[in-house]
Amino acid sequence: MTNETIMHQLNHRTIRAFKPTNLSAEQLNTLYSVASHTPTSMFMQQMSIMHITDPDKRAAIREISKQPYVGANGDLFIFLVDLYRNQQIRQQKGKDDGRLHTADIFFQGLDDAIMAAQNVITAAESMGLGVVPLGSIKNDPQKIIEVLNLPKMTFPVLGLQIGVPDQEPQLKPRLPLKFIAFNNNYPKEIKFSDLSDYDQEVTTYYDLRDTNQRSDSFTNQIAGAKLERHYTKRDEIMKILHQQGLCTDEGID
Amino acid sequence: MTNETIMHQLNHRTIRAFKPTNLSAEQLNTLYSVASHTPTSMFMQQMSIMHITDPDKRAAIREISKQPYVGANGDLFIFLVDLYRNQQIRQQKGKDDGRLHTADIFFQGLDDAIMAAQNVITAAESMGLGVVPLGSIKNDPQKIIEVLNLPKMTFPVLGLQIGVPDQEPQLKPRLPLKFIAFNNNYPKEIKFSDLSDYDQEVTTYYDLRDTNQRSDSFTNQIAGAKLERHYTKRDEIMKILHQQGLCTDEGID
Repeated sequence: MTNETIMHQLNHRTIRAFKPTNLSAEQLNTLYSVASHTPTSMFMQQMSIMHITDPDKRAAIREISKQPYVGANGDLFIFLVDLYRNQQIRQQKGKDDGRLHTADIFFQGLDDAIMAAQNVITAAESMGLGVVPLGSIKNDPQKIIEVLNLPKMTFPVLGLQIGVPDQEPQLKPRLPLKFIAFNNNYPKEIKFSDLSDYDQEVTTYYDLRDTNQRSDSFTNQIAGAKLERHYTKRDEIMKILHQQGLCTDEGID
Repeated sequence: MTNETIMHQLNHRTIRAFKPTNLSAEQLNTLYSVASHTPTSMFMQQMSIMHITDPDKRAAIREISKQPYVGANGDLFIFLVDLYRNQQIRQQKGKDDGRLHTADIFFQGLDDAIMAAQNVITAAESMGLGVVPLGSIKNDPQKIIEVLNLPKMTFPVLGLQIGVPDQEPQLKPRLPLKFIAFNNNYPKEIKFSDLSDYDQEVTTYYDLRDTNQRSDSFTNQIAGAKLERHYTKRDEIMKILHQQGLCTDEGID
Protein backbone atom coordinates (compact mmCIF):
# COMPACT_ATOMS: atom_id res chain seq x y z
CA MET A 1 0.00 0.00 0.00
CA THR A 2 1.75 3.13 -1.16
CA ASN A 3 1.36 6.38 -3.01
CA GLU A 4 3.56 9.34 -3.87
CA THR A 5 3.34 10.82 -0.37
CA ILE A 6 4.01 7.59 1.49
CA MET A 7 6.83 6.67 -0.87
CA HIS A 8 8.60 9.90 0.10
CA GLN A 9 7.92 9.33 3.81
CA LEU A 10 9.32 5.80 3.71
CA ASN A 11 12.37 7.09 1.88
CA HIS A 12 13.15 9.83 4.34
CA ARG A 13 16.84 10.27 5.02
CA THR A 14 18.72 13.16 6.56
CA ILE A 15 20.49 15.39 4.04
CA ARG A 16 23.47 17.33 5.35
CA ALA A 17 25.07 18.56 2.11
CA PHE A 18 23.22 21.00 -0.13
CA LYS A 19 23.91 22.69 -3.45
CA PRO A 20 24.71 26.42 -3.31
CA THR A 21 21.19 27.56 -4.20
CA ASN A 22 18.39 28.98 -2.10
CA LEU A 23 14.68 28.37 -1.98
CA SER A 24 12.54 30.55 -4.23
CA ALA A 25 9.95 32.92 -2.78
CA GLU A 26 7.30 30.55 -4.08
CA GLN A 27 8.88 27.55 -2.34
CA LEU A 28 9.14 29.52 0.90
CA ASN A 29 5.51 30.53 0.67
CA THR A 30 4.43 26.93 0.06
CA LEU A 31 6.39 25.66 3.07
CA TYR A 32 4.95 28.38 5.32
CA SER A 33 1.43 27.61 4.09
CA VAL A 34 1.89 23.93 4.87
CA ALA A 35 3.15 24.85 8.34
CA SER A 36 0.14 27.07 8.96
CA HIS A 37 -2.30 24.29 7.96
CA THR A 38 -0.81 21.82 10.41
CA PRO A 39 -3.14 20.68 13.22
CA THR A 40 -3.00 23.09 16.16
CA SER A 41 -4.02 22.31 19.71
CA MET A 42 -7.28 24.02 20.76
CA PHE A 43 -6.90 26.22 17.64
CA MET A 44 -4.48 28.45 19.53
CA GLN A 45 -1.81 28.52 16.77
CA GLN A 46 1.07 28.81 19.21
CA MET A 47 4.05 28.39 16.90
CA SER A 48 6.11 30.65 14.65
CA ILE A 49 8.91 30.16 12.15
CA MET A 50 12.04 32.26 11.69
CA HIS A 51 13.92 32.20 8.40
CA ILE A 52 17.54 33.06 9.08
CA THR A 53 19.36 34.60 6.13
CA ASP A 54 21.59 37.03 8.02
CA PRO A 55 25.19 35.72 7.72
CA ASP A 56 26.15 36.75 11.27
CA LYS A 57 23.15 35.03 12.79
CA ARG A 58 23.78 31.93 10.68
CA ALA A 59 27.38 31.81 11.87
CA ALA A 60 26.28 32.26 15.49
CA ILE A 61 23.78 29.41 15.19
CA ARG A 62 26.44 27.20 13.56
CA GLU A 63 28.66 27.99 16.55
CA ILE A 64 25.91 26.80 18.93
CA SER A 65 25.09 23.66 16.98
CA LYS A 66 28.73 22.76 16.32
CA GLN A 67 27.70 21.26 12.98
CA PRO A 68 29.52 22.68 9.94
CA TYR A 69 26.50 22.32 7.64
CA VAL A 70 24.30 24.57 9.79
CA GLY A 71 23.94 27.89 8.03
CA ALA A 72 26.13 26.67 5.17
CA ASN A 73 24.38 25.92 1.84
CA GLY A 74 20.60 25.76 2.00
CA ASP A 75 17.96 27.72 3.93
CA LEU A 76 17.88 27.80 7.72
CA PHE A 77 14.62 27.85 9.71
CA ILE A 78 13.99 27.94 13.45
CA PHE A 79 10.63 26.75 14.80
CA LEU A 80 9.43 28.49 17.94
CA VAL A 81 6.89 27.70 20.58
CA ASP A 82 5.19 31.07 20.51
CA LEU A 83 2.90 32.07 23.37
CA TYR A 84 3.98 35.71 23.07
CA ARG A 85 1.46 36.39 20.30
CA ASN A 86 -1.47 35.16 22.36
CA GLN A 87 -0.16 36.94 25.44
CA GLN A 88 -0.14 40.20 23.44
CA ILE A 89 -3.68 39.55 22.19
CA ARG A 90 -4.89 38.97 25.75
CA GLN A 91 -3.11 42.06 27.07
CA GLN A 92 -4.55 44.25 24.33
CA LYS A 93 -7.99 42.94 25.30
CA GLY A 94 -7.37 43.82 28.95
CA LYS A 95 -6.92 40.21 30.06
CA ASP A 96 -4.29 38.72 32.38
CA ASP A 97 -2.04 35.92 31.11
CA GLY A 98 -4.50 33.26 32.26
CA ARG A 99 -3.10 29.77 31.66
CA LEU A 100 -0.25 30.87 29.36
CA HIS A 101 2.41 30.09 31.97
CA THR A 102 1.22 26.54 32.67
CA ALA A 103 3.15 23.46 31.58
CA ASP A 104 -0.03 22.28 29.84
CA ILE A 105 -0.21 25.26 27.49
CA PHE A 106 3.54 25.18 26.89
CA PHE A 107 3.28 21.54 25.80
CA GLN A 108 0.39 22.44 23.50
CA GLY A 109 2.59 25.06 21.85
CA LEU A 110 5.39 22.52 21.61
CA ASP A 111 3.08 20.08 19.84
CA ASP A 112 2.09 22.84 17.42
CA ALA A 113 5.70 23.72 16.61
CA ILE A 114 6.98 20.16 16.24
CA MET A 115 4.04 19.01 14.12
CA ALA A 116 4.48 22.04 11.85
CA ALA A 117 8.18 21.22 11.48
CA GLN A 118 7.43 17.63 10.47
CA ASN A 119 4.80 18.84 8.00
CA VAL A 120 7.39 21.18 6.45
CA ILE A 121 9.91 18.31 6.21
CA THR A 122 7.37 16.20 4.34
CA ALA A 123 6.43 19.05 2.02
CA ALA A 124 10.07 19.87 1.28
CA GLU A 125 10.89 16.24 0.52
CA SER A 126 7.86 15.98 -1.76
CA MET A 127 9.34 18.90 -3.74
CA GLY A 128 12.62 17.04 -4.18
CA LEU A 129 14.38 19.03 -1.48
CA GLY A 130 16.41 17.59 1.39
CA VAL A 131 16.24 18.42 5.09
CA VAL A 132 18.29 18.05 8.24
CA PRO A 133 16.43 18.60 11.51
CA LEU A 134 18.57 20.53 13.98
CA GLY A 135 17.95 19.62 17.60
CA SER A 136 21.47 20.99 18.06
CA ILE A 137 20.15 24.56 18.21
CA LYS A 138 19.33 23.72 21.85
CA ASN A 139 22.98 22.97 22.69
CA ASP A 140 22.97 26.36 24.44
CA PRO A 141 19.36 27.44 25.07
CA GLN A 142 20.33 30.83 26.53
CA LYS A 143 22.61 31.67 23.61
CA ILE A 144 20.14 30.77 20.86
CA ILE A 145 17.53 33.03 22.49
CA GLU A 146 20.08 35.87 22.55
CA VAL A 147 21.14 35.31 18.93
CA LEU A 148 17.51 35.38 17.78
CA ASN A 149 16.69 38.24 20.19
CA LEU A 150 13.49 36.49 21.24
CA PRO A 151 10.95 37.93 23.67
CA LYS A 152 9.76 36.05 26.74
CA MET A 153 6.97 33.54 26.11
CA THR A 154 8.80 32.18 23.04
CA PHE A 155 11.24 29.30 22.84
CA PRO A 156 13.20 27.86 19.88
CA VAL A 157 12.54 24.12 19.75
CA LEU A 158 13.85 22.84 16.43
CA GLY A 159 15.86 24.04 13.46
CA LEU A 160 15.57 22.81 9.89
CA GLN A 161 18.15 23.27 7.17
CA ILE A 162 16.48 22.77 3.79
CA GLY A 163 17.94 22.76 0.29
CA VAL A 164 18.73 20.94 -2.91
CA PRO A 165 20.48 17.70 -1.91
CA ASP A 166 24.14 17.33 -2.82
CA GLN A 167 24.43 13.78 -1.51
CA GLU A 168 22.48 10.53 -1.72
CA PRO A 169 22.82 8.82 1.64
CA GLN A 170 21.46 5.34 2.22
CA LEU A 171 18.28 4.68 4.10
CA LYS A 172 19.06 4.27 7.79
CA PRO A 173 17.48 1.10 9.19
CA ARG A 174 14.85 1.60 11.91
CA LEU A 175 13.73 -0.66 14.75
CA PRO A 176 11.50 -3.52 13.60
CA LEU A 177 7.85 -2.55 14.01
CA LYS A 178 7.19 -5.12 16.73
CA PHE A 179 9.44 -3.04 19.02
CA ILE A 180 7.54 0.21 18.50
CA ALA A 181 3.88 -0.64 17.76
CA PHE A 182 1.75 -2.53 20.27
CA ASN A 183 -1.81 -3.78 20.47
CA ASN A 184 -3.65 -2.73 23.66
CA ASN A 185 -0.84 -3.72 26.03
CA TYR A 186 2.62 -2.28 26.48
CA PRO A 187 5.14 -5.19 26.39
CA LYS A 188 7.22 -4.63 29.51
CA GLU A 189 9.19 -7.83 28.92
CA ILE A 190 11.29 -6.99 25.91
CA LYS A 191 13.43 -9.79 24.49
CA PHE A 192 16.61 -8.07 23.52
CA SER A 193 18.01 -11.18 21.91
CA ASP A 194 15.51 -10.28 19.17
CA LEU A 195 17.47 -7.06 18.58
CA SER A 196 20.64 -8.81 17.41
CA ASP A 197 19.53 -8.95 13.76
CA TYR A 198 18.68 -5.26 13.88
CA ASP A 199 22.00 -4.47 15.55
CA GLN A 200 23.74 -6.24 12.67
CA GLU A 201 21.69 -4.29 10.14
CA VAL A 202 22.71 -0.97 11.74
CA THR A 203 26.38 -1.97 11.84
CA THR A 204 26.27 -2.91 8.15
CA TYR A 205 24.66 0.45 7.36
CA TYR A 206 27.54 2.30 9.00
CA ASP A 207 30.10 0.09 7.29
CA LEU A 208 28.63 1.00 3.90
CA ARG A 209 28.10 4.68 4.57
CA ASP A 210 30.40 7.09 2.75
CA THR A 211 31.19 9.46 5.59
CA ASN A 212 31.80 6.85 8.20
CA GLN A 213 31.62 8.40 11.65
CA ARG A 214 30.05 5.60 13.70
CA SER A 215 30.11 1.89 13.09
CA ASP A 216 28.30 0.72 16.14
CA SER A 217 25.15 -1.32 16.65
CA PHE A 218 21.95 0.30 17.88
CA THR A 219 22.14 -1.18 21.38
CA ASN A 220 25.80 -0.19 21.69
CA GLN A 221 24.88 3.37 20.78
CA ILE A 222 22.13 3.40 23.42
CA ALA A 223 24.53 1.96 26.00
CA GLY A 224 27.27 4.36 24.89
CA ALA A 225 28.43 7.94 25.08
CA LYS A 226 25.37 9.81 23.91
CA LEU A 227 23.34 8.75 26.94
CA GLU A 228 26.23 8.80 29.44
CA ARG A 229 26.10 11.50 32.08
CA HIS A 230 28.26 14.47 31.10
CA TYR A 231 28.25 18.21 31.46
CA THR A 232 26.24 19.98 28.75
CA LYS A 233 24.44 23.31 28.52
CA ARG A 234 21.53 21.34 27.06
CA ASP A 235 20.64 20.63 30.68
CA GLU A 236 19.82 24.31 31.16
CA ILE A 237 16.63 23.82 29.15
CA MET A 238 14.16 23.91 32.08
CA LYS A 239 15.96 26.89 33.63
CA ILE A 240 15.81 28.83 30.38
CA LEU A 241 12.21 27.81 29.73
CA HIS A 242 11.33 29.23 33.14
CA GLN A 243 13.37 32.34 32.45
CA GLN A 244 11.26 32.79 29.31
CA GLY A 245 8.12 32.68 31.48
CA LEU A 246 7.15 29.26 30.14
CA CYS A 247 6.12 26.17 32.05
CA THR A 248 6.41 28.03 35.40
CA ASP A 249 2.87 27.63 36.69
CA GLU A 250 1.36 24.48 38.19
CA GLY A 251 -2.19 25.79 37.75
CA ILE A 252 -4.92 26.06 40.38
CA ASP A 253 -5.16 23.44 43.14
CA MET B 1 3.69 25.33 -6.45
CA THR B 2 1.94 22.17 -5.47
CA ASN B 3 1.86 18.42 -5.82
CA GLU B 4 -0.25 15.57 -4.47
CA THR B 5 1.39 15.64 -1.04
CA ILE B 6 1.20 19.39 -0.56
CA MET B 7 -2.37 19.49 -1.84
CA HIS B 8 -3.36 17.11 0.96
CA GLN B 9 -1.38 19.08 3.54
CA LEU B 10 -3.01 22.37 2.55
CA ASN B 11 -6.41 20.70 2.69
CA HIS B 12 -5.95 19.28 6.17
CA ARG B 13 -9.07 19.45 8.30
CA THR B 14 -10.00 17.63 11.47
CA ILE B 15 -12.39 14.71 10.93
CA ARG B 16 -14.48 13.76 13.96
CA ALA B 17 -17.08 11.44 12.36
CA PHE B 18 -16.00 8.16 10.79
CA LYS B 19 -17.75 5.32 8.99
CA PRO B 20 -18.12 2.04 10.91
CA THR B 21 -15.11 0.36 9.31
CA ASN B 22 -11.63 -0.31 10.60
CA LEU B 23 -8.21 -0.02 9.04
CA SER B 24 -6.89 -3.10 7.26
CA ALA B 25 -3.76 -4.89 8.45
CA GLU B 26 -2.00 -3.48 5.41
CA GLN B 27 -3.06 0.09 6.22
CA LEU B 28 -1.91 -0.35 9.82
CA ASN B 29 1.43 -1.66 8.68
CA THR B 30 1.89 1.26 6.30
CA LEU B 31 1.12 3.81 9.02
CA TYR B 32 3.52 2.14 11.46
CA SER B 33 6.24 2.03 8.79
CA VAL B 34 5.81 5.73 8.12
CA ALA B 35 6.02 6.42 11.86
CA SER B 36 9.21 4.40 12.14
CA HIS B 37 10.85 6.31 9.27
CA THR B 38 10.20 9.69 10.85
CA PRO B 39 13.31 11.67 11.84
CA THR B 40 14.47 10.69 15.32
CA SER B 41 16.68 12.76 17.56
CA MET B 42 20.24 11.37 17.93
CA PHE B 43 18.90 8.12 16.36
CA MET B 44 17.56 7.08 19.75
CA GLN B 45 14.06 6.10 18.49
CA GLN B 46 12.35 7.09 21.72
CA MET B 47 8.69 6.77 20.77
CA SER B 48 6.13 3.96 20.59
CA ILE B 49 2.58 3.63 19.36
CA MET B 50 -0.30 1.79 21.00
CA HIS B 51 -3.29 0.66 18.94
CA ILE B 52 -6.30 0.46 21.23
CA THR B 53 -8.96 -1.99 20.08
CA ASP B 54 -10.10 -3.24 23.49
CA PRO B 55 -13.64 -1.87 24.08
CA ASP B 56 -13.11 -1.28 27.80
CA LYS B 57 -9.91 0.65 27.23
CA ARG B 58 -11.55 2.66 24.45
CA ALA B 59 -14.44 3.55 26.76
CA ALA B 60 -12.02 4.53 29.53
CA ILE B 61 -10.06 6.78 27.17
CA ARG B 62 -13.31 8.36 25.92
CA GLU B 63 -14.18 9.04 29.57
CA ILE B 64 -10.85 10.86 30.02
CA SER B 65 -11.06 12.85 26.80
CA LYS B 66 -14.75 13.71 27.26
CA GLN B 67 -15.18 13.64 23.48
CA PRO B 68 -17.89 11.26 22.22
CA TYR B 69 -15.99 10.40 19.03
CA VAL B 70 -12.95 9.04 20.90
CA GLY B 71 -13.01 5.27 20.67
CA ALA B 72 -16.21 5.39 18.60
CA ASN B 73 -15.91 4.58 14.87
CA GLY B 74 -12.38 4.46 13.51
CA ASP B 75 -9.06 3.25 14.93
CA LEU B 76 -7.56 4.72 18.09
CA PHE B 77 -3.81 5.20 18.54
CA ILE B 78 -1.81 6.60 21.44
CA PHE B 79 1.69 7.95 20.81
CA LEU B 80 4.14 7.54 23.68
CA VAL B 81 7.40 9.13 24.61
CA ASP B 82 9.24 5.88 25.28
CA LEU B 83 12.49 5.98 27.22
CA TYR B 84 11.69 2.61 28.84
CA ARG B 85 13.03 0.65 25.88
CA ASN B 86 16.41 2.37 25.98
CA GLN B 87 16.52 2.11 29.77
CA GLN B 88 16.03 -1.67 29.43
CA ILE B 89 18.76 -1.89 26.80
CA ARG B 90 21.16 0.00 29.06
CA GLN B 91 20.29 -2.12 32.10
CA GLN B 92 20.78 -5.35 30.17
CA LYS B 93 24.19 -4.04 29.14
CA GLY B 94 25.06 -3.31 32.77
CA LYS B 95 24.77 0.47 32.39
CA ASP B 96 23.08 2.98 34.69
CA ASP B 97 20.28 5.20 33.36
CA GLY B 98 22.78 7.87 32.30
CA ARG B 99 20.96 10.92 30.90
CA LEU B 100 17.56 9.23 30.52
CA HIS B 101 16.01 11.23 33.36
CA THR B 102 17.09 14.64 32.06
CA ALA B 103 14.65 17.15 30.63
CA ASP B 104 16.83 17.25 27.51
CA ILE B 105 16.35 13.58 26.70
CA PHE B 106 12.65 13.71 27.57
CA PHE B 107 12.19 16.56 25.08
CA GLN B 108 14.06 14.56 22.44
CA GLY B 109 11.62 11.69 22.96
CA LEU B 110 8.74 14.14 22.79
CA ASP B 111 10.00 15.45 19.45
CA ASP B 112 10.23 11.85 18.18
CA ALA B 113 6.67 11.03 19.23
CA ILE B 114 5.06 14.23 17.96
CA MET B 115 6.88 14.15 14.62
CA ALA B 116 5.86 10.52 14.13
CA ALA B 117 2.24 11.43 14.89
CA GLN B 118 2.27 14.21 12.29
CA ASN B 119 3.86 11.89 9.74
CA VAL B 120 1.08 9.35 10.37
CA ILE B 121 -1.57 12.07 9.96
CA THR B 122 -0.10 13.03 6.58
CA ALA B 123 0.13 9.38 5.46
CA ALA B 124 -3.45 8.64 6.55
CA GLU B 125 -4.79 11.70 4.75
CA SER B 126 -2.88 10.75 1.60
CA MET B 127 -4.74 7.41 1.73
CA GLY B 128 -8.09 9.20 1.81
CA LEU B 129 -8.53 8.64 5.54
CA GLY B 130 -9.44 11.31 8.09
CA VAL B 131 -7.83 12.05 11.44
CA VAL B 132 -8.56 13.84 14.69
CA PRO B 133 -5.56 14.51 16.95
CA LEU B 134 -6.47 13.93 20.59
CA GLY B 135 -4.60 16.19 22.99
CA SER B 136 -7.56 15.41 25.25
CA ILE B 137 -5.99 12.11 26.35
CA LYS B 138 -3.93 14.31 28.71
CA ASN B 139 -7.04 15.63 30.48
CA ASP B 140 -6.09 13.27 33.31
CA PRO B 141 -2.43 12.23 32.93
CA GLN B 142 -2.51 9.83 35.90
CA LYS B 143 -5.64 8.09 34.65
CA ILE B 144 -4.45 7.56 31.07
CA ILE B 145 -1.26 5.94 32.37
CA GLU B 146 -3.35 3.60 34.53
CA VAL B 147 -5.72 2.72 31.69
CA LEU B 148 -2.80 1.89 29.41
CA ASN B 149 -0.90 0.19 32.25
CA LEU B 150 2.30 1.96 31.22
CA PRO B 151 5.68 1.42 32.87
CA LYS B 152 7.78 4.27 34.21
CA MET B 153 9.91 6.07 31.60
CA THR B 154 6.94 6.21 29.19
CA PHE B 155 4.36 8.97 28.77
CA PRO B 156 1.33 9.23 26.47
CA VAL B 157 1.57 12.52 24.58
CA LEU B 158 -1.00 12.44 21.80
CA GLY B 159 -3.86 10.31 20.56
CA LEU B 160 -5.02 9.95 16.98
CA GLN B 161 -8.40 8.64 15.88
CA ILE B 162 -8.18 7.57 12.24
CA GLY B 163 -10.84 6.27 9.88
CA VAL B 164 -12.92 6.69 6.75
CA PRO B 165 -14.42 10.19 6.93
CA ASP B 166 -18.17 10.47 7.39
CA GLN B 167 -18.24 14.25 7.14
CA GLU B 168 -16.79 16.96 4.92
CA PRO B 169 -15.99 19.91 7.14
CA GLN B 170 -14.81 23.19 5.71
CA LEU B 171 -11.21 24.29 5.79
CA LYS B 172 -10.58 26.25 8.99
CA PRO B 173 -8.87 29.56 8.26
CA ARG B 174 -5.38 30.00 9.74
CA LEU B 175 -3.47 33.11 10.76
CA PRO B 176 -2.08 35.05 7.79
CA LEU B 177 1.52 34.03 7.17
CA LYS B 178 2.93 37.42 8.14
CA PHE B 179 1.91 36.67 11.73
CA ILE B 180 3.73 33.33 11.92
CA ALA B 181 6.75 33.49 9.58
CA PHE B 182 9.51 36.06 10.09
CA ASN B 183 12.75 36.98 8.41
CA ASN B 184 15.73 37.17 10.82
CA ASN B 185 13.95 39.28 13.42
CA TYR B 186 11.05 38.44 15.69
CA PRO B 187 8.46 41.25 15.38
CA LYS B 188 7.76 42.17 18.98
CA GLU B 189 5.46 45.00 17.92
CA ILE B 190 2.47 43.19 16.53
CA LYS B 191 -0.28 45.35 15.02
CA PHE B 192 -3.44 43.65 16.10
CA SER B 193 -5.58 45.96 14.03
CA ASP B 194 -4.25 43.81 11.19
CA LEU B 195 -6.00 40.81 12.73
CA SER B 196 -9.51 42.18 12.25
CA ASP B 197 -9.86 40.74 8.74
CA TYR B 198 -8.73 37.36 10.02
CA ASP B 199 -11.10 37.59 12.98
CA GLN B 200 -13.93 38.19 10.53
CA GLU B 201 -12.84 35.20 8.45
CA VAL B 202 -12.90 32.91 11.50
CA THR B 203 -16.32 34.18 12.57
CA THR B 204 -17.67 33.53 9.08
CA TYR B 205 -16.22 30.01 9.17
CA TYR B 206 -18.11 29.23 12.37
CA ASP B 207 -21.29 30.77 11.00
CA LEU B 208 -21.14 28.46 8.00
CA ARG B 209 -20.09 25.33 9.84
CA ASP B 210 -22.71 22.61 10.18
CA THR B 211 -22.13 21.67 13.80
CA ASN B 212 -21.93 25.18 15.13
CA GLN B 213 -20.38 25.17 18.58
CA ARG B 214 -18.39 28.39 18.56
CA SER B 215 -18.99 31.51 16.57
CA ASP B 216 -16.27 33.66 17.94
CA SER B 217 -13.35 35.45 16.35
CA PHE B 218 -9.79 34.20 16.84
CA THR B 219 -8.77 36.99 19.21
CA ASN B 220 -11.96 36.53 21.26
CA GLN B 221 -11.14 32.84 21.63
CA ILE B 222 -7.62 33.66 22.79
CA ALA B 223 -8.98 36.23 25.26
CA GLY B 224 -11.73 33.82 26.33
CA ALA B 225 -12.43 30.74 28.40
CA LYS B 226 -9.88 28.30 27.04
CA LEU B 227 -6.97 30.34 28.37
CA GLU B 228 -8.69 31.55 31.56
CA ARG B 229 -7.35 30.16 34.82
CA HIS B 230 -9.45 27.26 36.02
CA TYR B 231 -9.00 23.98 37.84
CA THR B 232 -8.02 21.09 35.54
CA LYS B 233 -6.17 17.83 36.03
CA ARG B 234 -4.20 18.77 32.91
CA ASP B 235 -2.08 20.84 35.31
CA GLU B 236 -0.83 17.62 36.90
CA ILE B 237 1.31 16.97 33.82
CA MET B 238 4.69 17.87 35.37
CA LYS B 239 3.87 15.96 38.54
CA ILE B 240 2.95 12.84 36.58
CA LEU B 241 5.95 13.21 34.27
CA HIS B 242 8.17 13.23 37.36
CA GLN B 243 6.27 10.27 38.81
CA GLN B 244 7.08 8.42 35.58
CA GLY B 245 10.78 9.16 36.17
CA LEU B 246 10.88 11.63 33.29
CA CYS B 247 12.31 15.14 33.24
CA THR B 248 13.45 14.83 36.89
CA ASP B 249 17.17 15.40 36.47
CA GLU B 250 18.86 18.75 35.86
CA GLY B 251 22.08 17.08 34.69
CA ILE B 252 25.60 17.67 35.95
CA ASP B 253 26.67 21.16 37.10
